[in-house]
Amino acid sequence: MAKLYNNIAILGLGLIGGSIALDLKKRRLARRVVGYNRSAPSRRAALRRRACDAVTGDPVAAVRDADLVVLATPVRHIPELLRKIAPGLKNGAVVTDVGSTKENIVRRAKKLLPKGVVFVGGHPIAGTEKTGMASALEGLFEGRWWVFTPDSAASKKATKRLSRLAKALGAKPLAISPKEHDEILAAISHLPHMLAYALVHAAMGLQGGKALKLSGSSFRDVTRIAASSAQMWTDIGLDNHREILRMIDRHEQFLKKLKGLLAKRDAKGLEKFFESAARVRRKL
Amino acid sequence: MAKLYNNIAILGLGLIGGSIALDLKKRRLARRVVGYNRSAPSRRAALRRRACDAVTGDPVAAVRDADLVVLATPVRHIPELLRKIAPGLKNGAVVTDVGSTKENIVRRAKKLLPKGVVFVGGHPIAGTEKTGMASALEGLFEGRWWVFTPDSAASKKATKRLSRLAKALGAKPLAISPKEHDEILAAISHLPHMLAYALVHAAMGLQGGKALKLSGSSFRDVTRIAASSAQMWTDIGLDNHREILRMIDRHEQFLKKLKGLLAKRDAKGLEKFFESAARVRRKL
Repeated sequence: MAKLYNNIAILGLGLIGGSIALDLKKRRLARRVVGYNRSAPSRRAALRRRACDAVTGDPVAAVRDADLVVLATPVRHIPELLRKIAPGLKNGAVVTDVGSTKENIVRRAKKLLPKGVVFVGGHPIAGTEKTGMASALEGLFEGRWWVFTPDSAASKKATKRLSRLAKALGAKPLAISPKEHDEILAAISHLPHMLAYALVHAAMGLQGGKALKLSGSSFRDVTRIAASSAQMWTDIGLDNHREILRMIDRHEQFLKKLKGLLAKRDAKGLEKFFESAARVRRKL
Repeated sequence: MAKLYNNIAILGLGLIGGSIALDLKKRRLARRVVGYNRSAPSRRAALRRRACDAVTGDPVAAVRDADLVVLATPVRHIPELLRKIAPGLKNGAVVTDVGSTKENIVRRAKKLLPKGVVFVGGHPIAGTEKTGMASALEGLFEGRWWVFTPDSAASKKATKRLSRLAKALGAKPLAISPKEHDEILAAISHLPHMLAYALVHAAMGLQGGKALKLSGSSFRDVTRIAASSAQMWTDIGLDNHREILRMIDRHEQFLKKLKGLLAKRDAKGLEKFFESAARVRRKL
């Protein structure tokens, strides 16, 4: 059977990169999958789990024959990585990424990649609070959205094949602009993370830690994502700070409304505020 | 075997009251469990599930022989219920409740109950976002905290036996003051709920609902509790508005700090802010 891509290079064998590699091999979606990671134990784990046909600590070697390159390292390493691999990419190669922010990455990639190579920003909306090849899972993308952010004729064309690959991984592909992506993600992912981190801070010092001791399932659910990688969230915070700041402001407008209702002890207003959100949430 | 209480009346057969009744019968912790609920289908469901020996739509009849009365109705109905049952309570009876706020309820109960009846504020920190007898579960309190808020010599004494009952239901009893309770709960439960409701509002209107469509597990986890009963949260908001307002202010201080770090694109500061919260959260 013809493959969507013959040679795929996965740069970064963490939770997302590792899970992509696992599914590519398991579902025979490429002739050859080559993995790059700086850490030797991660490379060995990828081989042991049969996520890659070959692994290397040299990103240039990894991309040499690649028709498709997937950047799956922490976002902060992407510009440096693009610079390194740029001279080694095949003419006609497609490069995509899996980062949680898009505008900044798309802009950097366009500057750093040579003509004849097409970049398509990508973001599979999947993951857990865990990190690393050891946490990689088969089927991680099943039923999840996989956003692509094409911004040129060539990248729109490349998005078609990438979308077929995303579907083959079980995901639902969706094309939107980098800006739309960053605004939406600020609302549905970055803001919830910021609130979870701030909430843990608010509860931490209270009554000598007694508050945290008593925390039940509601606190634990809301703050589960505050256990995520601080480094990754720093990258996202730096990259998408404008949209995140706008979204915190937006959130604070609703907090302000809520504070007004509480201060006035406005039973009808409170119930309306809670019920309108509850109705929307129950439908998700 | 001697029972901790011979006759227990459960007023309100919802998720919490129903689950208490189920466990009392299953574990044979009382000779007789009588349930009161306004709605006939809930009463029938309680009988069908063998949560009660008898049910009634008359709260005075329910408490007539009770050594222990558990108020498990929505918080807004507690004052009216106390007024109704006050003349019918046995001398020496103990009354407790399961409400999510304590200062206000304890103050009202002291005013409304006759001499010779002891009130102990109670709050099992357990539950789901579901409501009603149909959602009642055996073992709901297993491993959960059950807070009591004694505030007199008599209520301290009554708390000892109540704590043994809570243990028999699998819970971990803990005695603190009503004020401590309301501050802690504002931090670990009421504030997370307020944030979840505000977060759904912030995401609702964005890009014609496209934002919500793309929401992944992080948004869903953080906002799960925003599907809770709007009526119950209105009661809690009214009862504990002072502590909740203080806690929202406290939360906003941390949001302000975070906004400063984002605006300055302070990588070190952001990572420290996230990591210190993540370390605490990972330990829970």
